[in-house]
Amino acid sequence: MANWKLLLINGKTNLINLDLEIIDIPNFGRFPSESLLNQKHNSDFNFLGKNCRLIDYKLIDIHSNLKRGPQIISPKDIAWIVYKSGLQPGDLVVEAGSGSAALTVALAQSVAPEGQVITFESNLKHIKIAKSNIEMSPWNDLVHIQKEELTSKSDFIESSAIVFDLPNPQDLVKWSWKSLKIGGFLICYLPTVNQVENLLSKLDSWSDVEINETMQRAWRPNLSALRPESMMLGHTGFIVSARRTR
Amino acid sequence: MANWKLLLINGKTNLINLDLEIIDIPNFGRFPSESLLNQKHNSDFNFLGKNCRLIDYKLIDIHSNLKRGPQIISPKDIAWIVYKSGLQPGDLVVEAGSGSAALTVALAQSVAPEGQVITFESNLKHIKIAKSNIEMSPWNDLVHIQKEELTSKSDFIESSAIVFDLPNPQDLVKWSWKSLKIGGFLICYLPTVNQVENLLSKLDSWSDVEINETMQRAWRPNLSALRPESMMLGHTGFIVSARRTR
Amino acid sequence: MANWKLLLINGKTNLINLDLEIIDIPNFGRFPSESLLNQKHNSDFNFLGKNCRLIDYKLIDIHSNLKRGPQIISPKDIAWIVYKSGLQPGDLVVEAGSGSAALTVALAQSVAPEGQVITFESNLKHIKIAKSNIEMSPWNDLVHIQKEELTSKSDFIESSAIVFDLPNPQDLVKWSWKSLKIGGFLICYLPTVNQVENLLSKLDSWSDVEINETMQRAWRPNLSALRPESMMLGHTGFIVSARRTR
Amino acid sequence: MANWKLLLINGKTNLINLDLEIIDIPNFGRFPSESLLNQKHNSDFNFLGKNCRLIDYKLIDIHSNLKRGPQIISPKDIAWIVYKSGLQPGDLVVEAGSGSAALTVALAQSVAPEGQVITFESNLKHIKIAKSNIEMSPWNDLVHIQKEELTSKSDFIESSAIVFDLPNPQDLVKWSWKSLKIGGFLICYLPTVNQVENLLSKLDSWSDVEINETMQRAWRPNLSALRPESMMLGHTGFIVSARRTR
Repeated sequence: MANWKLLLINGKTNLINLDLEIIDIPNFGRFPSESLLNQKHNSDFNFLGKNCRLIDYKLIDIHSNLKRGPQIISPKDIAWIVYKSGLQPGDLVVEAGSGSAALTVALAQSVAPEGQVITFESNLKHIKIAKSNIEMSPWNDLVHIQKEELTSKSDFIESSAIVFDLPNPQDLVKWSWKSLKIGGFLICYLPTVNQVENLLSKLDSWSDVEINETMQRAWRPNLSALRPESMMLGHTGFIVSARRTR
Repeated sequence: MANWKLLLINGKTNLINLDLEIIDIPNFGRFPSESLLNQKHNSDFNFLGKNCRLIDYKLIDIHSNLKRGPQIISPKDIAWIVYKSGLQPGDLVVEAGSGSAALTVALAQSVAPEGQVITFESNLKHIKIAKSNIEMSPWNDLVHIQKEELTSKSDFIESSAIVFDLPNPQDLVKWSWKSLKIGGFLICYLPTVNQVENLLSKLDSWSDVEINETMQRAWRPNLSALRPESMMLGHTGFIVSARRTR
Repeated sequence: MANWKLLLINGKTNLINLDLEIIDIPNFGRFPSESLLNQKHNSDFNFLGKNCRLIDYKLIDIHSNLKRGPQIISPKDIAWIVYKSGLQPGDLVVEAGSGSAALTVALAQSVAPEGQVITFESNLKHIKIAKSNIEMSPWNDLVHIQKEELTSKSDFIESSAIVFDLPNPQDLVKWSWKSLKIGGFLICYLPTVNQVENLLSKLDSWSDVEINETMQRAWRPNLSALRPESMMLGHTGFIVSARRTR
Repeated sequence: MANWKLLLINGKTNLINLDLEIIDIPNFGRFPSESLLNQKHNSDFNFLGKNCRLIDYKLIDIHSNLKRGPQIISPKDIAWIVYKSGLQPGDLVVEAGSGSAALTVALAQSVAPEGQVITFESNLKHIKIAKSNIEMSPWNDLVHIQKEELTSKSDFIESSAIVFDLPNPQDLVKWSWKSLKIGGFLICYLPTVNQVENLLSKLDSWSDVEINETMQRAWRPNLSALRPESMMLGHTGFIVSARRTR
């Protein structure tokens, strides 16, 4: 079980699990979680000499505190995939593979409070990390980790959207067609152009086939020297989307 | 009232309002909506010689069919704003101004099925367009258009996020601070650098101040001549986000 | 023959050919070139009621006044190709095809005042346009248009750099290896990823293989509303460069 | 004095100074330069068990071997500045400051074999580095380092182009107007938007005012996993150019 809260310490955010016995916050302190249990939420209180407050957290707090494992899809891409998926409260979405589950928790939020995410992952190490990250989400209960590889032979799953972050999505295009509700989107995240080519060659029957890449540039919020950051992510992945309309 | 559905005609999508007496689809036909009323949804039927189907639509279908008025925020920016807002089902979000309401309907979906969007718009022409676009959304009931300008003197509104697409957000920073729940985000969409500077000068007490610009490049899905589109949107707006954590 | 000059009219630039009998400048007038022949260069004079001056022109004036034919390589790409070519005064460079010769005149300038550009073009229409554009350049005499297709069977040409803007540069890689001086660069401009792949598969023996794409974003020089232009070229071509070092 | 050559060792380039007594090449060896003096240039020879060759070098070899000091302008920006300057063989160009002289040597090449670069630098440490880098160039003799700050009070210098990489170019706009030949370009490299604004406010009398930023994305030349590099320079500087036409 998990009972996550955002602990503000003099305005700095710390995502903590109140169900752990001991909470350890670098540059602040190590203390039993008990000492916070009686604090009223959404109100200031003094704790270890600092002004503190316990509040609910947001998706962005989960993403800032993910346990690191396999390469994490970047926020700019998560934002686009969720938008493009068209997912609504109550929908069922299939994801493969789970990876670090950064996308999984975003998908869960998009179908909350009553939808479902079925996420396939066969790598045991990834499953462990994914599980631990999904537990941070308030929509934990909406996610089902299917501990196996999704293959073209897997049972079809009637779904509103299907999202793939795996090397060979072209092998799952037929499976996706059969599984997707008419009107639903298949969305694939692909680092290389070769993968885009392989996938594209299988999308003849699909509608609204789009390939997009998103570049995001952060600026330094410095009023007297306003400029973009020097380094940026020049590439993460191409996002191919296609819609089943027949 | 409105009763929108997606009518697939040989796999092509058409967003239609079944409550209109006459439906007019270019290159297909003009017919009384009555003729569709008895068709079973989510099943193929033959209509005017074509294979048709009535299904639910998605946010993306609304965005593709918006009644055009004031400049519409582009999908890449809507995706980022919704992500960054951290909005969850049940939240209340304030928006000003409504513009064409492209962002409004996306915000509504992010707080659905039970949240609330309060969107301020004083321009009568914009209100009319916004209203008509919001009516397309299944979350129509969650949106309240406030037909006035939001000013620093307006009553505070306890909200989980505040989103501004207006020229002088710096005048509303204090109002936003008072209105936002602790932990909530203020997000401003700003076309010019001058606006970014003006806003930035008022954000000293805020946390996690970020300035981002998102560039999205579409590729032609042509397997034998795979290449990005020649023209792209080089600039829409800077997105400044800041969090109240005190 | 051609005798080009830049005619400034109240500070506006007009590239004119003094060897034409009649000069026609839109929104200014139509007059015999004779009427300018006695004007001292680099000095103001009054002409048809305006303040005028005859001065030398620059590469950029040629590029702004090119006779339009086949797709012109954009300035950002010309700049990079010239830089990457490493061409110096006195060098010989091979180009194929000439296209509209925008790049040709830039290459000519980079090897001026004593180098040589050999540019291959088999399309008669393109040759005509290229010729007319090259004649605008002060380095006209350094350019030789070879009116045929460059093929793998063509005679080798000892050169310091080779620049290709043609669909199948992979067929000319061996020819380029034999023709290039050791230390020289092969540079190919390629619109599609498929072409990049085809070329790349032939570059195993080459050094410093690089694939670059350059995006240039112009800003509106408007002090009170400083912002990037909305539309930009999102893609022109990939530039592949490789060096012969053996 | 300096006598630079490119030494190819099994196809790998090494820029060396034959006037040094001892040459030290990491992972190859340390040897007296004498041992290379009798080798015929542009021919293979065997040396320390490897296939070697001495050839002329290119601008790009200087840029790859610059002694590092102040921030170096990146190749993409050098390429654009040189292009936009319109410099031709024989021209005189003014630069301030010299910095590491990466741009200086490129400007020198663009006016070679008979033009002139006057570059201002007051920082003694930078002068030392600049000098050492300029000495690598075959156009060394065309460059004059002016060991002082260029100020609005400095003597005017009749020039074809003026290039500034310094914090306050707005203070030198009038000086530039007086110094530039009519038709010539002023080009400023500016990291921040604030600097762009300051400069822009002084450019009212100028023509063809342009603000550009260039983003260059390198791709991995890997045929089976073709993709852009993950990290790229998201920002170096804005390049503002303006022409004197009156």
